[in-house]
Amino acid sequence: MSTVSTFPKNTWYVAASSQEIGADKPLGRMVCGERIAFYRDAAGKMVAVQDFCPHRGAPLSLGHVCDGQLTCGYHGLVMGCDGKTVSMPGQRVRGFPAIKSFPVAERYGFVWVWTGEAALADEAKLPVLEFFDHPEWAYGGGLYHIACDYRLMIDNLMDLTHETYVHSTSIGQKEIDETPCKTTVEDDTVVTSRFMSGIEAPPFWKMALRANGLPDDQPVDRWQICRFSPPSHVMIEVGVALQGHGGYDAPNDKKAYSVVVDFITPETETSIHYFWGMARKFKPQDAELTNTIRQGQGKIFAEDLEMLERQQKNLLAWPERQLLMLNIDAGGVQSRKIIDRILAAERAGTAALAPAAAPLAA
Amino acid sequence: MSTVSTFPKNTWYVAASSQEIGADKPLGRMVCGERIAFYRDAAGKMVAVQDFCPHRGAPLSLGHVCDGQLTCGYHGLVMGCDGKTVSMPGQRVRGFPAIKSFPVAERYGFVWVWTGEAALADEAKLPVLEFFDHPEWAYGGGLYHIACDYRLMIDNLMDLTHETYVHSTSIGQKEIDETPCKTTVEDDTVVTSRFMSGIEAPPFWKMALRANGLPDDQPVDRWQICRFSPPSHVMIEVGVALQGHGGYDAPNDKKAYSVVVDFITPETETSIHYFWGMARKFKPQDAELTNTIRQGQGKIFAEDLEMLERQQKNLLAWPERQLLMLNIDAGGVQSRKIIDRILAAERAGTAALAPAAAPLAA
Amino acid sequence: MSTVSTFPKNTWYVAASSQEIGADKPLGRMVCGERIAFYRDAAGKMVAVQDFCPHRGAPLSLGHVCDGQLTCGYHGLVMGCDGKTVSMPGQRVRGFPAIKSFPVAERYGFVWVWTGEAALADEAKLPVLEFFDHPEWAYGGGLYHIACDYRLMIDNLMDLTHETYVHSTSIGQKEIDETPCKTTVEDDTVVTSRFMSGIEAPPFWKMALRANGLPDDQPVDRWQICRFSPPSHVMIEVGVALQGHGGYDAPNDKKAYSVVVDFITPETETSIHYFWGMARKFKPQDAELTNTIRQGQGKIFAEDLEMLERQQKNLLAWPERQLLMLNIDAGGVQSRKIIDRILAAERAGTAALAPAAAPLAA
Repeated sequence: MSTVSTFPKNTWYVAASSQEIGADKPLGRMVCGERIAFYRDAAGKMVAVQDFCPHRGAPLSLGHVCDGQLTCGYHGLVMGCDGKTVSMPGQRVRGFPAIKSFPVAERYGFVWVWTGEAALADEAKLPVLEFFDHPEWAYGGGLYHIACDYRLMIDNLMDLTHETYVHSTSIGQKEIDETPCKTTVEDDTVVTSRFMSGIEAPPFWKMALRANGLPDDQPVDRWQICRFSPPSHVMIEVGVALQGHGGYDAPNDKKAYSVVVDFITPETETSIHYFWGMARKFKPQDAELTNTIRQGQGKIFAEDLEMLERQQKNLLAWPERQLLMLNIDAGGVQSRKIIDRILAAERAGTAALAPAAAPLAA
Repeated sequence: MSTVSTFPKNTWYVAASSQEIGADKPLGRMVCGERIAFYRDAAGKMVAVQDFCPHRGAPLSLGHVCDGQLTCGYHGLVMGCDGKTVSMPGQRVRGFPAIKSFPVAERYGFVWVWTGEAALADEAKLPVLEFFDHPEWAYGGGLYHIACDYRLMIDNLMDLTHETYVHSTSIGQKEIDETPCKTTVEDDTVVTSRFMSGIEAPPFWKMALRANGLPDDQPVDRWQICRFSPPSHVMIEVGVALQGHGGYDAPNDKKAYSVVVDFITPETETSIHYFWGMARKFKPQDAELTNTIRQGQGKIFAEDLEMLERQQKNLLAWPERQLLMLNIDAGGVQSRKIIDRILAAERAGTAALAPAAAPLAA
Repeated sequence: MSTVSTFPKNTWYVAASSQEIGADKPLGRMVCGERIAFYRDAAGKMVAVQDFCPHRGAPLSLGHVCDGQLTCGYHGLVMGCDGKTVSMPGQRVRGFPAIKSFPVAERYGFVWVWTGEAALADEAKLPVLEFFDHPEWAYGGGLYHIACDYRLMIDNLMDLTHETYVHSTSIGQKEIDETPCKTTVEDDTVVTSRFMSGIEAPPFWKMALRANGLPDDQPVDRWQICRFSPPSHVMIEVGVALQGHGGYDAPNDKKAYSVVVDFITPETETSIHYFWGMARKFKPQDAELTNTIRQGQGKIFAEDLEMLERQQKNLLAWPERQLLMLNIDAGGVQSRKIIDRILAAERAGTAALAPAAAPLAA
């Protein structure tokens, strides 16, 4: 890894979904270049320590969790949640060198880790997302590993004209290209929005309309409101409403309204863990619908993988080429400016990110 | 890639067979270290441009061809055949930076590309090969990707004593080793020839004799005339004639006569696209025979792959070792001398290769 | 490879099991960073030469052995056992450059190679192992390729507390952890031993007891005597005896007694060929039992692979971290001291390793 990081460190990143980490087995995952073992203590509280046993360097993530204690799978060293060895069969462990432990939190069904300066970690800085843990909303999602700079994924999500081309059979349609978008910046939040009127819903949204008990053969209004907040969260309000009912502001029984949730976690400078999902504000109790949408979204989002990985290879092959910054790219460009400002502040040694709330108008 | 290329650039290389590139989809392929997207314009004419969208660096080869225009699969930029952007939804593209376009030609069922100085490109410099598009000849072939320096493949084809060892069950026979070859150089062409008399035909040639309605249990004369022409074409006249009818000069109904066609295209300094095939001058209308021969040749030529790739690894592991240059290696040695002369001329800035015609005596 | 080797060179390493090398085909294998072709001469005697044909650099191991002569599979050069070319069709070979040949020996069903200074090679320096070629003993084993420094495998075998964790379902048991081990060094041999009394045999040893006609439901004494000798051989006396019959010294009909055989051969600085096996001193004629034990041991030893490879990756990722040297690590630590002494002597140019005999008390 280069000495100058390309991603902020004093911030929370999603490391895993909660259900990836059970009671018995730790999870090994690299976040921001740090190899980390995640596990739950006896109370079920999340713990994150360096994935390195101080005894002989074995990865702790190959071990087991017994009664909430992480036990190395090689020679039985028991690691504490603070990175200090608790015990080891037949050994006095007082003098064992400690390993790094990482601030970690669990919220919204995700495990969040802070790989920067631990003293700056503060759960108050976790994003506030109203659609999680809310009876009017349902959530489903997944995880993809992609070999690209995390900023290419931000670019992707802040410029949805790509849907017309990459996702032409599901959510793409020519009206996206034809309808200008508007980008605004307020503090550390970038919003790029596009509103289309009187169009035919594309296949994914026809499915959603039917799922909400609405006809799929009538003109609709469609909206896309992409909202970047640091370090790399992109929440996208999306939906369609039957025409003539107020569009984005239509009542719930005249529209299908969701938020595309994107947590983009740098693994290395050129690879990410991409946590994608959809929170929807219709038929929240319908678990089968949640599953149908998750499968559909997973298929659609998989269409981006090859493009992003090949784009990354191209950028590495042509490091001298300048990319264009068009109006459609404004969302990504503004997001990168905010990231650059945060990186400069981190290099200068100033404080961590402010809380990255994502207040929705809905 | 090293700064000094090991392959000539001001010359035509085969990039693809014509049927690899249809009307709808571009083909992405690296030739001489250049990532190139190939496609057909509205008139079906071949186009070759850098595989890099000037908008955000996506590979254009992941896009589509609509009405003969190459459209980027990421955000819909339409690229022109000259590397200048034609249009993009909602954008003025006048100021977009251009990408490189490459001279490209289509001939003999192949797509030829010129990665050097475009001003020097001239279709008159394409090789003239009489056995293509000729009613007395039939052609079939294929493509292998091999991780070796293109010159190792030239060596391989200019010294057919390897048939005795690598292809012992099909075209190899001890008489190849026992019969001296003769190498001559005229201008930029190297010819290595070997004539064997009164031998038993090996299995592949017995099959060919039978296919031409001839007995396979009689003594034959056999010939191999390897002809190198720059940058890396090797045409090999091969065949057997029933003994006593004039050998190489026997009438067509007393022999089975073919030309092994080898176009060797550098992908990188240590990998190639190897276009192999066989043009035969008997039973040209017999499509099933074409297929049988292609399958047989494909199986035989696949036997070289491991040897060439392992040889390449050995040469990289022992860079200081000098290879021997025996009489049997004269064909490859002389071919490399011609290549070295061309490379020196390219470095000195002098002109491109002369046309590489391959006149056959037949 | 670094200029300073991390493994002794003036010593014998196991390169292959004898049955890997038949009469017709050479075997290509890298030992201590040297690419070597192994084959048998006409008398069946083992030969080892550089895997590089002096003609064009092809790997000789892709060739054939005809009448005990190694023939290059590319153009038929015949290589001699001394690295000098014997002949080549149509060539005078007197002036061909020689390749390196390596001292090689065959003993105990293994092929041993000496990659250091040939003048120092001496078969008298081969280890003396009484359990091979002995009617009271039977042997079975296998070969694993592992991407780790050979010393990590020595550490593994000289500290069997890992059995409790890595092999918990077969040979591990908590009493290993609870019973202190004792490490002694005599000349170039390190011995780490552990004796457990009145315990329940773990599943593998219950199987062994039954195989020797003994009950598996009675308390046993169990022993583990790990014996390192340079460069990287670890012989481990293991077994269980019905309690009250003298433990390690119990008569053969009251115990199941074996020696775990480990020959660890560096391939590169970070990869090994690991020859594992078990010599047992009960029911030596029972070939089916040999097979059962080999399969069981193979499954158990495969459990170490991921741990060792991931440990190696961790050590490469954290090169600055010091590993602990606990009492349980004494066997590995002392073994490494001996290795370091030998490496220093090699650098200083003094003589080769003394014979590495492994006298057993049994």
